[in-house]
Amino acid sequence: MKYIVITFYPTNKRVAVPFGSDILTASVKANIFLASSCGGKGMCGRCKVKILSGEFDSEPTGKLSESEKKSNIFLACRTFAKSNLEVEILPETLLPSRIAPSIFEKGIEIQTPDLLKNLFPIHPLTKKYFLRLPKPSIGDSISDIERIYRALKKYSIDVPLNVNISTLRKIPQILRESNWEITVTLDEDNNAILLVEQGDTSKTNYGIAVDVGTTTIVVSLINLNNGETIGTESAFNSQGVYGDDVITRIIYAEKQQGLETLHHLVISTINELIQNIAKNHSITLNNITGIVSAGNMTMTHLLLKIDPSFLRRDPYIPSSNNFPTMFAAEIGIKISPSGILLPIGGPASYVGGDITAGVLATGMYNEENPYMLIDIGTNGEVVLGDKNWLLCVSASAGPAFEGTGVKNGTRAIEGAIQSFKIEDGQVKISTIGNKPPMGICGSGYIEIISELFKHKFIDRAGKFAGDNEKIRNGDDGKEFIVYRGNGKTKDILITQVDIENLLRAKAAIFSSIFMLIEKSGISWENIEKIYIAGGFGTFINIKAAMSIGLLPNIPEEKFIFVGDTALLGAKSFLISKMARKISYDIIKNMTYIDLSTEKSYMEEYLGALFLPHTNLEKLSLKIK
Amino acid sequence: MKYIVITFYPTNKRVAVPFGSDILTASVKANIFLASSCGGKGMCGRCKVKILSGEFDSEPTGKLSESEKKSNIFLACRTFAKSNLEVEILPETLLPSRIAPSIFEKGIEIQTPDLLKNLFPIHPLTKKYFLRLPKPSIGDSISDIERIYRALKKYSIDVPLNVNISTLRKIPQILRESNWEITVTLDEDNNAILLVEQGDTSKTNYGIAVDVGTTTIVVSLINLNNGETIGTESAFNSQGVYGDDVITRIIYAEKQQGLETLHHLVISTINELIQNIAKNHSITLNNITGIVSAGNMTMTHLLLKIDPSFLRRDPYIPSSNNFPTMFAAEIGIKISPSGILLPIGGPASYVGGDITAGVLATGMYNEENPYMLIDIGTNGEVVLGDKNWLLCVSASAGPAFEGTGVKNGTRAIEGAIQSFKIEDGQVKISTIGNKPPMGICGSGYIEIISELFKHKFIDRAGKFAGDNEKIRNGDDGKEFIVYRGNGKTKDILITQVDIENLLRAKAAIFSSIFMLIEKSGISWENIEKIYIAGGFGTFINIKAAMSIGLLPNIPEEKFIFVGDTALLGAKSFLISKMARKISYDIIKNMTYIDLSTEKSYMEEYLGALFLPHTNLEKLSLKIK
Repeated sequence: MKYIVITFYPTNKRVAVPFGSDILTASVKANIFLASSCGGKGMCGRCKVKILSGEFDSEPTGKLSESEKKSNIFLACRTFAKSNLEVEILPETLLPSRIAPSIFEKGIEIQTPDLLKNLFPIHPLTKKYFLRLPKPSIGDSISDIERIYRALKKYSIDVPLNVNISTLRKIPQILRESNWEITVTLDEDNNAILLVEQGDTSKTNYGIAVDVGTTTIVVSLINLNNGETIGTESAFNSQGVYGDDVITRIIYAEKQQGLETLHHLVISTINELIQNIAKNHSITLNNITGIVSAGNMTMTHLLLKIDPSFLRRDPYIPSSNNFPTMFAAEIGIKISPSGILLPIGGPASYVGGDITAGVLATGMYNEENPYMLIDIGTNGEVVLGDKNWLLCVSASAGPAFEGTGVKNGTRAIEGAIQSFKIEDGQVKISTIGNKPPMGICGSGYIEIISELFKHKFIDRAGKFAGDNEKIRNGDDGKEFIVYRGNGKTKDILITQVDIENLLRAKAAIFSSIFMLIEKSGISWENIEKIYIAGGFGTFINIKAAMSIGLLPNIPEEKFIFVGDTALLGAKSFLISKMARKISYDIIKNMTYIDLSTEKSYMEEYLGALFLPHTNLEKLSLKIK
Repeated sequence: MKYIVITFYPTNKRVAVPFGSDILTASVKANIFLASSCGGKGMCGRCKVKILSGEFDSEPTGKLSESEKKSNIFLACRTFAKSNLEVEILPETLLPSRIAPSIFEKGIEIQTPDLLKNLFPIHPLTKKYFLRLPKPSIGDSISDIERIYRALKKYSIDVPLNVNISTLRKIPQILRESNWEITVTLDEDNNAILLVEQGDTSKTNYGIAVDVGTTTIVVSLINLNNGETIGTESAFNSQGVYGDDVITRIIYAEKQQGLETLHHLVISTINELIQNIAKNHSITLNNITGIVSAGNMTMTHLLLKIDPSFLRRDPYIPSSNNFPTMFAAEIGIKISPSGILLPIGGPASYVGGDITAGVLATGMYNEENPYMLIDIGTNGEVVLGDKNWLLCVSASAGPAFEGTGVKNGTRAIEGAIQSFKIEDGQVKISTIGNKPPMGICGSGYIEIISELFKHKFIDRAGKFAGDNEKIRNGDDGKEFIVYRGNGKTKDILITQVDIENLLRAKAAIFSSIFMLIEKSGISWENIEKIYIAGGFGTFINIKAAMSIGLLPNIPEEKFIFVGDTALLGAKSFLISKMARKISYDIIKNMTYIDLSTEKSYMEEYLGALFLPHTNLEKLSLKIK
């Protein structure tokens, strides 16, 4: 096979790729992650690069403006190298590879300790025991393993335990070199000895909880001895280069080497976050003995390198609802070589471990009266129920509310426009941390649509209406100037296409909520509380969300923001045996309603595409 | 490092070894196994080779005759290559690498089926289930794994099961390619799915029982569906090149790469036997899903590549009494890649899985009255007890009765002299299968010593006495001509050194038996039966054994030959869950008596070195 070299500027990264490779694939190989919503199919037009020199073929596309074409800008996914190439990466096309812990995550930190500590007694996934063993003698000549068991029995541990042959091989020497003072790390759920170390290392036992989101990955480092969170970091899931949503990822996984590539990307992102957070807190990876992941089924399949293709094919079957405990090293996660990974499972192909974790973290599985959990990420999932029953649905909301797939979208980080008002014809915005505006986050978009609708800039179908100096024609059609750049900052816009994306997302979410209410046979007023979870939930303006028909018109105090419940639940699962037991029950007992087989769903969805809805009664208490 | 090449004739095998390597190590690398009792220390003088050309250093030795020295014969272990060498292997120094199934093993085959079938219900270590799964549909959309569990529940199998990630990865595709007709192989003791295959393979499920002896390895191939033995083969343990007994092996294991070498040798021998037997019966290795090994603790440690050095050091501690289930592939055994190995454990460093298997196979753990089991292999172990108590000891008998470490010794194979009489001054011998004599097996030696003593060729100390044409002076001192060669056959001798070795072995065994009786507080007449197990036991002349003081003088009908109970027990363990459960109880409940800490043992041993004993009362019923 003929190989050629592609050099990416401004970083000067060079990679060798087979003749004819596309530039998007080459860029991933160079660890450069371009935004690409469609997974490299030439449809989203986001992976723009500038070609400086070399020979290449490029397919025609309607996604580039004339001025871009003149500047030698091409879509990376549709451009194929025929000689050594020099390629310039445009900063605005880069998927942010790392973002600082956001206010959003800091928000969780305030809630976490109470919830976890009150609910679940601490009994972590991996537990260390320091043992001072009596030296063997002719009168006490039991085997090395029996000696360890005898000491563990004092902690009410059921022996014998499973011990793998490579651990067993090390034990005789470790016992004697340590003068019979050792620390044993156990996986008590599986009755297994994971590691035997010299001396007392029991004070340093750490675990990782990871929310493997389609768009964002959040990692927390936890002290397994007391359940306290030491730190949290997040990054975009670099799989994002191969598509925004789970379906696009699954399709990419079906390509040759596709599954391996996506698996590798998510593992790399997680490893980078773990390494960073461990380094920041001066904790060695060898002292991290357990990791729990919560993700939707597609993310969990990709994490484990299990073929996800049957998840998207009728009748939508996951490989498993629960996943086995495995060595983290088996899937390439770098913690202690004896450390284990336990992914949280879920009830259905489109309701995964992130939702199990959410139900666990909120405690709704244990309530007398019905609660609702709405988790709005790239997929929207909704759960309704109490201690006797749990129903769930999933809605393909798309990532618009997470700030992806919209022109100036961003996550809820400093500088994100989170509030928007039109007063006396004047736009008033505020940003997170009062920093210079750099994009719009989900809560911002809700207020913008609410205000644009209220002030008749857009009609019930979301179309820009009338003439206004703030509405202009851009590359993607009409656009509204949310913030006018001052030279140092750029213009921040909401386009007609953005609004359509946002309305589709809100329609998917609301119609799913509505279907769940219908199916359960209860009415809005029976619901005790509605928990809003997920990437954008923490700061949304409930009134605005009601006014656009994203949420039903029920008393505002019934809504509770609960933050990243996938992460919160993963932590509980990591540190509490009781939480793990409850999770298995949640998975078993939660009933999934497949909206694709519900004839009335499409009708509900179409009605919900309008502002606020074609049938106002459906939003309100009056419906039942 | 400088490498040089050694060529071995007549096979023309060439190996490259570091400059200065000894020839014994080089020969093992060339898969040539020379007899060597001492483990390469220059003490046994058995590893003779002829050097044809090249430069070398050789240490002086008293183990070579003048005629050998003139013929360029050297001890391989004490000769170090300084240039490329040409070395001739002398056929008589070769350790037999493979011997045909002996009458001895055929003998077991007669006993096996009854014992196994009556005692234990069949529930094999690995069991296959053929499942016809209903195709998933929207109305029946449980996960792939749940679908398998649902079908397995009909067989009363406790779900969920453990399934490792690499198996889980294969399941979605296998289910769909097989049109939902699959065979699942389970390790039910560990609640694990080992393998999922397309179609119905449940009819072909095989297992291996292996007796890993210090001298001999015996392998049986078992049909796991009905417990029947398909075939049995045996070979010398090629570790024999590094010493005859367990202590020599342990010392060798402590050298650099020693453990790896011994591990590799035993695994190679087992693999060769499995391959051969599978081929002979047209069974593919992929259909062999489980293997059970029974060996003494040293053999089991070496099999698993666990450092055995603490077994021989005060206070004699094994790494474990019970060993974990592992993939056979983890230690290099070639059966199905998903096949598992479970070694049988034992109560102490010198009473291992072979004895646990023996107690299991004989059923003595379940008797009302005391039974004794004497297993005479390279180590002699003796167990005494009934359903309420079990005592055991080990005796370092050495391999003389297995035909090793004696000049013309052989195992009980065709042509072995098994019977010897002196009538009217004339020697009368008979061989197994009435084939031309080629050596002396254990039972032959017992009769020879008995007759030589009876007819005063040797005195009570075993020394050749008087002058007789049949006694001559040989290289190793005086020797008795058991059989005079006829040109085609060679002379077969018993030497003074042989007799000393045999008397040491018999003294070790008898004094161990006696100590056990003393410790238990019972007397000879309380013993219901004495089971004689092990490599040479099947054909011994009880009267002769009594006359030389190897066995006590109790009624002959109390002795029962039970053959290779290690193999028999391994089979039971392999095919019956109940047998596995019982074995764990045997290991837990059997009390080991360490003779090295018993002050009176040395006295007993010294008395038993004489023919038949210094104190005749100890041999007889009168003692208590």
